[in-house]
Amino acid sequence: MDLNSVSYVLDTFFAIFAMTLIIFMVPGFAMLEAGLVRTKNVSAVLMVNTMIYAVASLAFLLFGYSVAFGDFGSDSMSQWAAFLFQMAFVGKVVNIMSGGVSERAKVLPLAFFTVIMASVLYPIVVNWSWGANMLEGTPLELSMYDLAGSTVIHSTGGWALLAAILIIGPRLGRYPKGGGVRVIPASNIPLVTLGAFLLWIGWFGFNGGSVGSIASKESADAVALTIMNTNTAGLAGAIIVGAFMYFRYKKLDITMVLNGALGGLVAITAGPDLYDIYTPILIGAIGGAIVVFGVSFFDKLRLDDPVGALSVHLLNGIWGTLAVGIFASNGTDITFMGQLKGVFVVGIFAFVSSYIVLFIIDKVVSLRADRDEEMQGLDVEECGLEAYPEFKRAF
Amino acid sequence: MDLNSVSYVLDTFFAIFAMTLIIFMVPGFAMLEAGLVRTKNVSAVLMVNTMIYAVASLAFLLFGYSVAFGDFGSDSMSQWAAFLFQMAFVGKVVNIMSGGVSERAKVLPLAFFTVIMASVLYPIVVNWSWGANMLEGTPLELSMYDLAGSTVIHSTGGWALLAAILIIGPRLGRYPKGGGVRVIPASNIPLVTLGAFLLWIGWFGFNGGSVGSIASKESADAVALTIMNTNTAGLAGAIIVGAFMYFRYKKLDITMVLNGALGGLVAITAGPDLYDIYTPILIGAIGGAIVVFGVSFFDKLRLDDPVGALSVHLLNGIWGTLAVGIFASNGTDITFMGQLKGVFVVGIFAFVSSYIVLFIIDKVVSLRADRDEEMQGLDVEECGLEAYPEFKRAF
Amino acid sequence: MDLNSVSYVLDTFFAIFAMTLIIFMVPGFAMLEAGLVRTKNVSAVLMVNTMIYAVASLAFLLFGYSVAFGDFGSDSMSQWAAFLFQMAFVGKVVNIMSGGVSERAKVLPLAFFTVIMASVLYPIVVNWSWGANMLEGTPLELSMYDLAGSTVIHSTGGWALLAAILIIGPRLGRYPKGGGVRVIPASNIPLVTLGAFLLWIGWFGFNGGSVGSIASKESADAVALTIMNTNTAGLAGAIIVGAFMYFRYKKLDITMVLNGALGGLVAITAGPDLYDIYTPILIGAIGGAIVVFGVSFFDKLRLDDPVGALSVHLLNGIWGTLAVGIFASNGTDITFMGQLKGVFVVGIFAFVSSYIVLFIIDKVVSLRADRDEEMQGLDVEECGLEAYPEFKRAF
Repeated sequence: MDLNSVSYVLDTFFAIFAMTLIIFMVPGFAMLEAGLVRTKNVSAVLMVNTMIYAVASLAFLLFGYSVAFGDFGSDSMSQWAAFLFQMAFVGKVVNIMSGGVSERAKVLPLAFFTVIMASVLYPIVVNWSWGANMLEGTPLELSMYDLAGSTVIHSTGGWALLAAILIIGPRLGRYPKGGGVRVIPASNIPLVTLGAFLLWIGWFGFNGGSVGSIASKESADAVALTIMNTNTAGLAGAIIVGAFMYFRYKKLDITMVLNGALGGLVAITAGPDLYDIYTPILIGAIGGAIVVFGVSFFDKLRLDDPVGALSVHLLNGIWGTLAVGIFASNGTDITFMGQLKGVFVVGIFAFVSSYIVLFIIDKVVSLRADRDEEMQGLDVEECGLEAYPEFKRAF
Repeated sequence: MDLNSVSYVLDTFFAIFAMTLIIFMVPGFAMLEAGLVRTKNVSAVLMVNTMIYAVASLAFLLFGYSVAFGDFGSDSMSQWAAFLFQMAFVGKVVNIMSGGVSERAKVLPLAFFTVIMASVLYPIVVNWSWGANMLEGTPLELSMYDLAGSTVIHSTGGWALLAAILIIGPRLGRYPKGGGVRVIPASNIPLVTLGAFLLWIGWFGFNGGSVGSIASKESADAVALTIMNTNTAGLAGAIIVGAFMYFRYKKLDITMVLNGALGGLVAITAGPDLYDIYTPILIGAIGGAIVVFGVSFFDKLRLDDPVGALSVHLLNGIWGTLAVGIFASNGTDITFMGQLKGVFVVGIFAFVSSYIVLFIIDKVVSLRADRDEEMQGLDVEECGLEAYPEFKRAF
Repeated sequence: MDLNSVSYVLDTFFAIFAMTLIIFMVPGFAMLEAGLVRTKNVSAVLMVNTMIYAVASLAFLLFGYSVAFGDFGSDSMSQWAAFLFQMAFVGKVVNIMSGGVSERAKVLPLAFFTVIMASVLYPIVVNWSWGANMLEGTPLELSMYDLAGSTVIHSTGGWALLAAILIIGPRLGRYPKGGGVRVIPASNIPLVTLGAFLLWIGWFGFNGGSVGSIASKESADAVALTIMNTNTAGLAGAIIVGAFMYFRYKKLDITMVLNGALGGLVAITAGPDLYDIYTPILIGAIGGAIVVFGVSFFDKLRLDDPVGALSVHLLNGIWGTLAVGIFASNGTDITFMGQLKGVFVVGIFAFVSSYIVLFIIDKVVSLRADRDEEMQGLDVEECGLEAYPEFKRAF
């Protein structure tokens, strides 16, 4: 073995390690969402999460990867490890979207959307941002810095979710005719907690792996700093929401605290390698605050999002991308306007294309379960089984 | 540090990484099975899984490893890492068997069987296939290619399960006198899903680590291709079962879809390093189809297997081993007949030896809980506690 | 890349790997404790675990790390990786303490204690044992060998718990006026099992990473031996408790068996790199036995510890530290008296300082929930939500 091979092996191994952590986000999202919805919709939510991993990954293998990157191939590590790492991302974009339409969206239309998103829409965004760059030389060419996808992953998924919510509408009874918001409590808090921490751990692979190499002192430092800053932003997001909940309501609503952590994690994702070790505290804290205010904001707009994904992923994806322009522009090519342009270009594309695709799917096979199915819960109709058949329901 | 040491360190580190992923299969099997059985048997199932990890691993340390490999020792990596990686496998063979006799088999006789399986039976199979090879030069010498154990692990466990089911019989009420099959629904679908994905992730370590080295460009490529192909077969298994369920029943039974993924994963395990990146789609899809048809097939034979392990592990272990002979024989020493011989030799040994051992254990301490205990659920009698004591049962 | 960089990269990567495994202990502790308490206190327990990770880690970043080690900095690996690895430890000390005061301690006072523990108390113990060593040259200077914290982590947390239990008292109804102990059953056994195995896996990172380097043949061997011995002690702890439970009660109480495994894991933690591969069987088995007898011992003293943390962490932390003096002193500088001195010095400091801090906190904001809140369960008052709102309670 020569030193050149050592680099190749280290980067391949590290990409596999990072990919594995990201795959823990599959049960992570599944548990988080299964815990947040009502028991009557739990199997359907788990089926959607399983379907997304299977369908999105295979579609990316067959079509999406070449749309994004042109072809298989990598000099600095095994091309298969490079593929695996990218493949681990793709389902996440759809997960972000599917969580927010839980308890009313059917599995089959979501599967159609997953195929399109993973084969074409998301790969185009990757192509522009990290990949073959078909916009090169055009006025739309992006100069956005987005290490691990505040915009490319989280906002893209968030815009698709906004499109989906506009088409599908709120859950029955969520916004009563007389006004206000009916609270629909999460059914299983341990699952929510487990899911959030699996996501948190997955983020180390997501952001750390996005540095692209560990095979030099500088790269190893960048990877370690990235993971440290990623974690710090999550800590700050959780703490700020906890403090707010305590001072405002004297109640530490754990689902909000965990969403605050996730908001901080999304916000740091655009540039965790660029900050000193204290800036992520500020970025994550603002990320947490955005979750708190975002959740009531979207409820005021009657945009029903059972898992808070619009606040966690869409708003914080935008915030995180802009934060790079604010805090990390010194001595780099990064500009606030370049970041803002990226947010707009990707946002408009993601929203419009998702809206069109979902609109067509909805016309062909209704995206939404019918009224009786929704009242009864989606599990019986969609999956033919209940999630907890032996447990007696309190209501 | 010299380059030779770098290889040693990389392979040691990689074996530890792979071993760790495989250990996630311990809670993986535990959660999968705890979710699939009725609430009254959940603690007993968890106790069996915990017992298996503890007893099988210690027996393998004290006896089994030297039966399989002669002695501790490895030149290319730390001998302790080599041991840990092999140790991580052993409990899985018994897990495969114990899952299928859930809800009626007692813990103590399973512990006796675990000792024998981990000390003698499984190590003999490993000796023949991957180890010191006591069959060398005899007519029974195997020429089977089985990278990570479609036959060595999955079929061996599956044959032991078949023997156990023949001895212990079906659960009370499973096959009513009037004919047909009584559906006994899974009690906790989130646990099933969590368990299945922990197994899936563990498979990356199982198959990737079985390549044996990562410390060269070629090895790193082989590891990455192995993990990629492993994953692809799981995707295809899930999708084919989902499609079948939808077209046949309009219901996406998530327990079947997840078992389809596991079937695909078992099927690819014999040769994930040998295929191009598209063949695993076919192998995994056939693996999923085998699960669908296997489950009804065994029910027709009144072989009661609450978790579908005969279909997932036994049938797909055979299919995966033969698939190597079909798809990967070009330009290699591998032949279909060599693969078939391996399936037969290992199968006959595993089934007959397991049958004899289980038969004797059953005579000494009945393998099966008595009728009252089974009706009440095994948790109270075996463990002295219930899994969910505060939750009111619906039935 | 030169060979010096290769070492740096390998050690950075390995520290990140080890840290990641330790972070799995966050959901590990959370699931274990959420499963062991009654459903009415589950959200509060999960909130405490989340708070601990967030608050302890951030306090350690801002204050604790420099108290322990003087300053950021590391030559042999990325300083950020070195920080992350140490940061992963700190919450565990508080986890050990918080688990034992579950079902009656409020979140806010525990948050105050977490700040002090992670900023000052634990960092002082680390300073003495592994860090800048402010005791150097004084009569109190420690010569204790404690690889991964039998004393530094587990006993320190255990002493803090003892102080807390003395201040807060037992749960209502736990020790009835007429004498005896009222059994309060665990509410969710799958979560207990999942949590225990996540902890077990985390221990591989905890102890393996504590070797400090993997970048030479000798270090790689030491890491692999450490992980192997760690695992073996856990196996032995589980088996001895299982055997005891079976022979004494004919019931395999899985919560005790899993605590036995954890006891074995704590006991091996002081010196897993120093033993041959068989000694851990003895150390772990004694560790398991200590759990069995410890649990009744503390109940006789009416020290109410719902999760058994005093037995698992305090007693086995002491046992494990002394075991190094008994079994590993040959040909080393380690002496039994040196180990004993470490146990005493750290123990007195940890107990007294924790007692004072908790006493003051208790005077300012009562550590204990008021009677009504405890009867109703802490979830509603502390978190404003129930953990399982849709499941009908059996009692």
